[in-house]
Amino acid sequence: MVRTTVGWQAGPAATLRRTPLKRRELRPDDLAVRVDYCGVCHSDLHALDVHDGAGDAPLVPGHEFTGVVTEVGFEVAGFAVGDPVAVGNIVDSCGECAMCRAGQENFCHAFPTLTYGGADRHDGSTTLGGFSRECVVRDRFAYPLPAGLDPAAAAPLLCAGITVWEPLRALGVGPETRVAVAGLGGLGHLAVKMAVALGADTWVISRSGDKAEDARRLGAHGLLVSADRDRMAAARDSFDVVIDTISAPHDLAPYLRLVAMDGTLSHLGHLGSVTVEMMDLLVGRKKLSSAGSGGRPATAAMLDFCAAHGVGADIEILPSSRVNEALDRLRRNDVRYRFVLDLSDLD
Amino acid sequence: MVRTTVGWQAGPAATLRRTPLKRRELRPDDLAVRVDYCGVCHSDLHALDVHDGAGDAPLVPGHEFTGVVTEVGFEVAGFAVGDPVAVGNIVDSCGECAMCRAGQENFCHAFPTLTYGGADRHDGSTTLGGFSRECVVRDRFAYPLPAGLDPAAAAPLLCAGITVWEPLRALGVGPETRVAVAGLGGLGHLAVKMAVALGADTWVISRSGDKAEDARRLGAHGLLVSADRDRMAAARDSFDVVIDTISAPHDLAPYLRLVAMDGTLSHLGHLGSVTVEMMDLLVGRKKLSSAGSGGRPATAAMLDFCAAHGVGADIEILPSSRVNEALDRLRRNDVRYRFVLDLSDLD
Repeated sequence: MVRTTVGWQAGPAATLRRTPLKRRELRPDDLAVRVDYCGVCHSDLHALDVHDGAGDAPLVPGHEFTGVVTEVGFEVAGFAVGDPVAVGNIVDSCGECAMCRAGQENFCHAFPTLTYGGADRHDGSTTLGGFSRECVVRDRFAYPLPAGLDPAAAAPLLCAGITVWEPLRALGVGPETRVAVAGLGGLGHLAVKMAVALGADTWVISRSGDKAEDARRLGAHGLLVSADRDRMAAARDSFDVVIDTISAPHDLAPYLRLVAMDGTLSHLGHLGSVTVEMMDLLVGRKKLSSAGSGGRPATAAMLDFCAAHGVGADIEILPSSRVNEALDRLRRNDVRYRFVLDLSDLD
Repeated sequence: MVRTTVGWQAGPAATLRRTPLKRRELRPDDLAVRVDYCGVCHSDLHALDVHDGAGDAPLVPGHEFTGVVTEVGFEVAGFAVGDPVAVGNIVDSCGECAMCRAGQENFCHAFPTLTYGGADRHDGSTTLGGFSRECVVRDRFAYPLPAGLDPAAAAPLLCAGITVWEPLRALGVGPETRVAVAGLGGLGHLAVKMAVALGADTWVISRSGDKAEDARRLGAHGLLVSADRDRMAAARDSFDVVIDTISAPHDLAPYLRLVAMDGTLSHLGHLGSVTVEMMDLLVGRKKLSSAGSGGRPATAAMLDFCAAHGVGADIEILPSSRVNEALDRLRRNDVRYRFVLDLSDLD
């Protein structure tokens, strides 16, 4: 028993092609969601590159989307047809391990089911993502979209937003905190907006001064150019929290030097293996951390916070038929600051 | 103008020889201290090895000692002749940088003056350490030895003790905390004693079960054998703080796995360059940190705490004439848990 929809599936040469897709019939705790907007994330590029070499299972990217409930399973209590909802990069987890019980399904010991490229916990099928007109997801992993959030600007909150939100909260960022955000991209611009909304004294660190005006518009107090050795030296030990959103391999030492006594450098996303001179941590008793994705309670709290503070992503909306163009431009970092696909052209 | 004493100075082949030494005449803020007991630290071995190759400046190790004030400079107000005192691994700092102003002289931006092998900030001479019968030190870097502390067992508190104390305090270790200490040596056994005295649920991680009885005697609730994969797997995400005192290069991943959500792995001492898989930090939002030595306020507080809770090092006292034997045995980790030299044989 399947339902059909249409979406953008990986073909040869890491390009996406419009393809008919199957979705499962609703289980008792499932929702069917008409996908209206889906953000384009760096992970999507990575998944396409990996898939291009291996590629046996179908790949439909997209793991930050908003839409409207079109059908509900008979046990679903929290959602009704017509509800605006949001879905992130996790659609299931074991529900029983210590991490799941703590509301950190993103760290599920049995590994969470990813929104695309994961294995469904019931039938083992490969999950297909939000670059499609309809998704069927377990109700626990859909979130009511609070009133006041623009559905297109809210889509990137479900991956980029929660990835930023969790470390900001875990590190206690608030009015007393000095925060620096390295890299002003999809993650970085949301880190600035959220840190500012939390009341922190927020700075941007960027390779050049080109984004100084943007930094100020986002609410940052200033921009520090990482190539300016004098300014970087003067800013030594200045920030309680440094959020590093740079995805390319890079030396962490210059950013660790900016961290204040007992402060933390938190890298967001997947940096792989890193070499750290432990003396850079010892002097000032600094901490190195990392974060990515988030759990259900934090995701719901983040959406409420963003609605209350008017935080959404700065986006460029493209019809989904231009998805390959979006991916090409994202690869060149030619976007301020997140592409969002409008899936209505798939009707 | 110089005074003379005698001490153990590095000769060829990394051995120490009894040698007449010069000490400066007292400056207005100096104390002369008769050194009674000096601990033998892994750093001393390291300094000897490095010196053996280069070796132009004289090397007299020893940077954790206790003794009695024998003379005071005319501006000294806080000490009088006859006072029992303790000195650690720092004897001066710039006093003006943010770290010094924050009472973290060990992180002085102008680099602290080390107790041996440092350059005196006034006359540029090489500092000579506590393996000698007399030291002359600036009063700010001597600490009153609280009543109730055994002077021999207290000596190692001044380097090993404060190195352990600062991260335990900075990480908020107390009755609610689950602490694991990896490596039961000079640092590790003090980490266990202090964590226990702070009320934490404290465990030891060791390569074998040989030290299970010692661990319990030190107050630990149990010992985890690092080679026991099942026990280590079962202890995953179990400790808010893991104190890693292993000085040899080693993989941090097995210890990071033991760290609980939002917890910290703190390595003590100088591990050099380390490779970290950032995913091991991301999953569970764990932190990697490092610590070593300490500032003046924390050193004084640590001594008070140890006096109040009866915490001293477990030591083996040797006459200072057996210093080379102590170093040899330390190199083989053949000590439970710290050698302390009795310098009275130098009279």
